[in-house]
Amino acid sequence: MIGFDLLARDGRARRGRMTLGRGTVETPAFMATGTAATVKAMRPEEVRAAGAELMLCNTYHLMLRPGAERVARLGGLHGFMNWPGPILTDSGGFQVMSLAALRKLTEEGVAFQSHLDGTRHMLTPERSIEIQHLLDSDVTMAFDECTKYPASEQEVAESMRLSMRWARRSRDAFRERPGKGLFGIVQGGVHHALRVESAAALIAIGFDGYAIGGLAVGEGFDLMVATIASTEPLLPAERPRYLMGVGKPPDIVAAVELGVDLFDCVIPTRSGRTAQAFTRDGPINIRNARFAEDPGPLDPGCACPACRSYSRAYLHHLVKAEEILGPMLLTQHNVTFYQDMMAGLRAAIVEGRFAAHAAAFLARCGGATEPASA
Amino acid sequence: MIGFDLLARDGRARRGRMTLGRGTVETPAFMATGTAATVKAMRPEEVRAAGAELMLCNTYHLMLRPGAERVARLGGLHGFMNWPGPILTDSGGFQVMSLAALRKLTEEGVAFQSHLDGTRHMLTPERSIEIQHLLDSDVTMAFDECTKYPASEQEVAESMRLSMRWARRSRDAFRERPGKGLFGIVQGGVHHALRVESAAALIAIGFDGYAIGGLAVGEGFDLMVATIASTEPLLPAERPRYLMGVGKPPDIVAAVELGVDLFDCVIPTRSGRTAQAFTRDGPINIRNARFAEDPGPLDPGCACPACRSYSRAYLHHLVKAEEILGPMLLTQHNVTFYQDMMAGLRAAIVEGRFAAHAAAFLARCGGATEPASA
Repeated sequence: MIGFDLLARDGRARRGRMTLGRGTVETPAFMATGTAATVKAMRPEEVRAAGAELMLCNTYHLMLRPGAERVARLGGLHGFMNWPGPILTDSGGFQVMSLAALRKLTEEGVAFQSHLDGTRHMLTPERSIEIQHLLDSDVTMAFDECTKYPASEQEVAESMRLSMRWARRSRDAFRERPGKGLFGIVQGGVHHALRVESAAALIAIGFDGYAIGGLAVGEGFDLMVATIASTEPLLPAERPRYLMGVGKPPDIVAAVELGVDLFDCVIPTRSGRTAQAFTRDGPINIRNARFAEDPGPLDPGCACPACRSYSRAYLHHLVKAEEILGPMLLTQHNVTFYQDMMAGLRAAIVEGRFAAHAAAFLARCGGATEPASA
Repeated sequence: MIGFDLLARDGRARRGRMTLGRGTVETPAFMATGTAATVKAMRPEEVRAAGAELMLCNTYHLMLRPGAERVARLGGLHGFMNWPGPILTDSGGFQVMSLAALRKLTEEGVAFQSHLDGTRHMLTPERSIEIQHLLDSDVTMAFDECTKYPASEQEVAESMRLSMRWARRSRDAFRERPGKGLFGIVQGGVHHALRVESAAALIAIGFDGYAIGGLAVGEGFDLMVATIASTEPLLPAERPRYLMGVGKPPDIVAAVELGVDLFDCVIPTRSGRTAQAFTRDGPINIRNARFAEDPGPLDPGCACPACRSYSRAYLHHLVKAEEILGPMLLTQHNVTFYQDMMAGLRAAIVEGRFAAHAAAFLARCGGATEPASA
């Protein structure tokens, strides 16, 4: 069981606090993406200094390498990766469908071959929960099937109902411990009736938090926002809501406005490895020749080490020379930008000026309406 | 002009202090290798925290990218790369012969094509000194030809005499400034008479320090040590001596014992990117399967962040998963190991126990006698 306190509201937007055994998480929150037990190109103390309080790690990656039993023998994920704060693990359901080879989906679970070495594995709700237990995850996610997009309404319904049966098995397999919790995942695609059915099924089982899954898979910004808007009222107000795999700044602002509390996405870290930097005046690609002699900081409004101590000209040089310090500094900046964005949204909710803050933020940094990529 | 004080001696080993405008350097010292204006995979504050006081940057790399005039317009190398301490730049002579295409060597200098984009360039003593001036180097190296190995004695003699004429032109081109200095480079291969002639020529010109060049190019440990032993007495005792491109720990210990004050080598940083770690009990390759569940630190005797906060098992995982944090942590450890080694040598000289310290250090960490690679 984990705690969740609602501290303030502004319209549908919520300012809250998750309380876990290993620390608190101020919401709305954006998780650090620590896929394979490391935030790529960052030290964990830098991740924390940027403002992140909750780390996301991936069951699929870690079960294959270094292996869940091995992590358990070494004392769990926190000590292994030097992150003393809380960790949320996904269930493996998403990556097994996007990365693994020779998948075979049955009522029991998913049999597949590792994309690394071809070894055969099986993920079931029970095994996914066991792996997350071995990793010593603080927030465990129920095992589900992320429905493909596009799909017929019947396909979406069958997939969602399978996920709901798996949610029941996940709940039964999960061992309650103080300060640790289990989240269920609402599926149903862009079909409201299916989302209603899915939310009701999860609430009947009972979870510590509720994720909205199956979005940011190609449906586009408008359909994503409409689905969040109609799904959010179905979820218990006193529990945190997590929008999985989202997104770009405009996606996050829109979802916070609709009452979402928790986010994760590879965009800030992946962008840092492809010379993309988020700034308060919109995204830039530092590889662009116009930055070659620009003595100014990446983002004059940012206080991160990359902006305090280096010029755009130097970052441009690092990227052109393919120096590792380039991704290191750009990732740190992007992670800081996202955490600053979340802190700004939290403050605006408390002060009852969310709408004005969101409008000003998006007008300046570019309120793009293209779909988020997961 | 730069200062150099001899603080203590133990046999031929010397404990000294270089005083430059931007700081002091305790010798014997191992420089940080900041080739293209960055120590690969490290932040400059981490380099400093590891104990390094002097940064080496490469004229050849920087003249091609981002360009010396560009660095000058941006205010010089120190601000550009966020390294406020002193910087030594090489002359470009070594890399132009090892990396550039279509080289043409004349009395005037070396014409060549960039290995990056094929553009045509010319390095002369005057241009090399000008580039180092534009970079705002604190220790400028005279432009020389690093004689190939093996070569006939006549080839070595002709190459050395060309380098001595270039040394004269380098001295004439160098603009004296307080706190900045110019080093000459002794050539002559493994031929003592040529080393004598070269040292005398440089001393007649007069330099702030004297480098021993043309070693660690394949001649082997014994011949390298013999050449250092016979060359060192030729150099002015009151000026620092720099052994270029050396080396592995046994090479450095042997050279310090013979009176060398300054070193640089890519080994600690390059090793950090290929899973090699130096430890007080000898080098290891962390990719080796025997480390997969090893909960201990890389080197129990090391206080660097990589050793304090992570296990060998985690570092093994990072390397196997090709995560950037692997090179980051291993490089930091290796740079710290080298700086700790130098601190140990300095303390042993002051306390008059160099021979015993060196023997114990090499017995434990492995006194390999294979030649160092540059």
